[in-house]
Amino acid sequence: MRDFLPEEAQMMKYIEGKARKIARLYGYGEIITPVLESYELLAAKAGEEIRSRMYAFEDLGGRKVALRPEFTASVARLVATTLRNEPKPLRMFSVGSLYRYDEPQQGRFREFWQSNYELMGSSKSEADAEIIMLTNSLMKAVGLKNFVFKVGHVGVLRGILSQEKIEDEFQNGIMQLMDKKEYADALDLVEETARASSRCLETLRKLVKVGGSKFSEVLGEMERLAEGYERAVDAVRNLEEILKLVSESGEKIHMIVEAGFARGLEYYTGMVFEIYVPEMNISLCGGGRYDRLIEMFGGEPTPAVGVAHGLDRIMMAMQKQKTPLETEEEKTVVVIPVNEGLKGEALKISRMLRDAGIPVEVEVMGRRVAKALEDADRRKMDYAVIVGERELKEKAVVLRDLAKREQKTVKIESIIGTIKGQA
Amino acid sequence: MRDFLPEEAQMMKYIEGKARKIARLYGYGEIITPVLESYELLAAKAGEEIRSRMYAFEDLGGRKVALRPEFTASVARLVATTLRNEPKPLRMFSVGSLYRYDEPQQGRFREFWQSNYELMGSSKSEADAEIIMLTNSLMKAVGLKNFVFKVGHVGVLRGILSQEKIEDEFQNGIMQLMDKKEYADALDLVEETARASSRCLETLRKLVKVGGSKFSEVLGEMERLAEGYERAVDAVRNLEEILKLVSESGEKIHMIVEAGFARGLEYYTGMVFEIYVPEMNISLCGGGRYDRLIEMFGGEPTPAVGVAHGLDRIMMAMQKQKTPLETEEEKTVVVIPVNEGLKGEALKISRMLRDAGIPVEVEVMGRRVAKALEDADRRKMDYAVIVGERELKEKAVVLRDLAKREQKTVKIESIIGTIKGQA
Repeated sequence: MRDFLPEEAQMMKYIEGKARKIARLYGYGEIITPVLESYELLAAKAGEEIRSRMYAFEDLGGRKVALRPEFTASVARLVATTLRNEPKPLRMFSVGSLYRYDEPQQGRFREFWQSNYELMGSSKSEADAEIIMLTNSLMKAVGLKNFVFKVGHVGVLRGILSQEKIEDEFQNGIMQLMDKKEYADALDLVEETARASSRCLETLRKLVKVGGSKFSEVLGEMERLAEGYERAVDAVRNLEEILKLVSESGEKIHMIVEAGFARGLEYYTGMVFEIYVPEMNISLCGGGRYDRLIEMFGGEPTPAVGVAHGLDRIMMAMQKQKTPLETEEEKTVVVIPVNEGLKGEALKISRMLRDAGIPVEVEVMGRRVAKALEDADRRKMDYAVIVGERELKEKAVVLRDLAKREQKTVKIESIIGTIKGQA
Repeated sequence: MRDFLPEEAQMMKYIEGKARKIARLYGYGEIITPVLESYELLAAKAGEEIRSRMYAFEDLGGRKVALRPEFTASVARLVATTLRNEPKPLRMFSVGSLYRYDEPQQGRFREFWQSNYELMGSSKSEADAEIIMLTNSLMKAVGLKNFVFKVGHVGVLRGILSQEKIEDEFQNGIMQLMDKKEYADALDLVEETARASSRCLETLRKLVKVGGSKFSEVLGEMERLAEGYERAVDAVRNLEEILKLVSESGEKIHMIVEAGFARGLEYYTGMVFEIYVPEMNISLCGGGRYDRLIEMFGGEPTPAVGVAHGLDRIMMAMQKQKTPLETEEEKTVVVIPVNEGLKGEALKISRMLRDAGIPVEVEVMGRRVAKALEDADRRKMDYAVIVGERELKEKAVVLRDLAKREQKTVKIESIIGTIKGQA
């Protein structure tokens, strides 16, 4: 686990702030759920891979608990309990830290941050389109320039497998291999264990190679290949409608469709997507539709679509793409009393400046002025206010512009104006 | 542990935002340390009471870890390691969740939030004054009106006990009883176990009754009582200087001094303070000076002063004092297509409004206009944009003011102006 020092912490909080802004613009209400939840809840639908890497333990009351490895289980719990009678749609936003005992590697940390958006209650394609648009808005808001959406639909593969009467358990295994792009192994599993028809195998073998950014071609090819597998054809058409809505919205999104794209988690039922940047080999987010999730957590059947964005990964992508943060230009000030007797005056002036919204550090080391100025220079502060007896008699101080290395005597009442450039 | 639904989550994030603003105004750089730390680190200086209530367990690598019960140990670790060569002063800010297995009661939660400020490297009274001022600024920033600082100095009691050659271990026990205002038991402990002089007992018996808001009287009385206990007299004078600086700063603070006020944690060495509101029986924050802390964590001797504010408790106080949140007045909009074929247009208009900073929810339930309007009414949205074919031919939509129950046809290009009240 890592510490974030101020520069990185500022970046993380910047991204979090943008995620919160996007939530507001799209009408997602923020909720805060605990970091620690019942193990049973978190393990229920996590998939074996995540389950085995949870930080799980018994609390002092003997309950088995764990640190959340994702937000979805907590949100599903809320929707299945406290919020079960809330009218739909429900739009919910969460942001915070999550925990998995992974081997540390690029873009994977044991404590990591996500922003999570869930749209519950709608089975419509415009809900899927909204989640894609919202994700694109976030990537633009943080300033990323070069990123690609990879989009697919688990209903295509699952539709074929289901019609071949392959059980869910096998399907999950097949989808997990597909998720890792181990297509040969996935097809072997279909052939050997699940004993599908040769036509099914042929179809899958061709399907996993279909993809690209020319949607009409790609989707047409997918539909042709899926012919005869009714639910798979429906899935292709659903994906087509979603992509058409996104396109009609005018939101500029760089997307590719991959017919063989699956996401590892078992609960996806429809459209799925991820985002890649050329500089990194790991997705910045994962999202899609999971219409059976709330039911699995004991709630009413509730169609749902959502996305989780990896804030650490977005941060890495921003660093690699040298994305500047839009921050307000603020002048920073140090206030230095020339002697011990003037410390109260220094605090008074600092209070006045802060009341005007100016960030101020007061000299608290009892250093001489020259030494304190040197330190302020090193730290690239903008101004020093030097509080001396002679000037105070005239209700003034010395204001030093640290970059220009110039100083002048300024009335106390006009320091704020001078620093803010209004004088 | 609790869930925060949108209204409370917004309040929590509002307070967090104010805490971050205060950090910026006072020059405290934000750092993010992990929720999970080594048990040994967290237990080192936590005091028996906190130690026994930590969420501790072995991770999958066999290391004993725990959820942090406070920020100070993590910050001390950083200062003793990564930041050990950083020039002083170091001003650091953290905010986040902490964990203690307490019995749930008013104002105490197992997962709770704090904002934490540490000023490392200065032994000067202006550093103490800064921490008090900063805390007052935060309380004002969140809008609390009615709160009182309780201020003391552990150096007074400890100075007397030390001169009586009472060992640290006994002192800690005595201070803990004092912290709980169990003065009789504390004095018994002094008498029986620690075998102090009768003069010491007499002094302590009188001291614990001294307090009030007339500082010159209170501090004068403390100094008289402490006479002959040199370090205790120094402590009173130090407190006097801190209070004088705060007063000279012009920051309006309602404070009382209590000579018998101690804080439970063992690491305090100087000024200590808490904040109370009349509506609650629990402190909103705890702060003070702990000059030996960094050394205890293996770092160089580093004078330090800091404070932790309980964000949950501040939130409760705000609720009790009915403190309004200063939030921007924002118009919220729903966009409703009159039929399926217009969903893309609805998404396009929603995108346009969001690009102008207007929060928009798109109808995603496929409901008829009347039904969707009813839902928007219930949720107290401000405007509905109804996208229909006839109006679209004229590049227009129907804009409905939901509060006024009025609607008119508006050109698409002028929706934003109309909603923002600029048309």
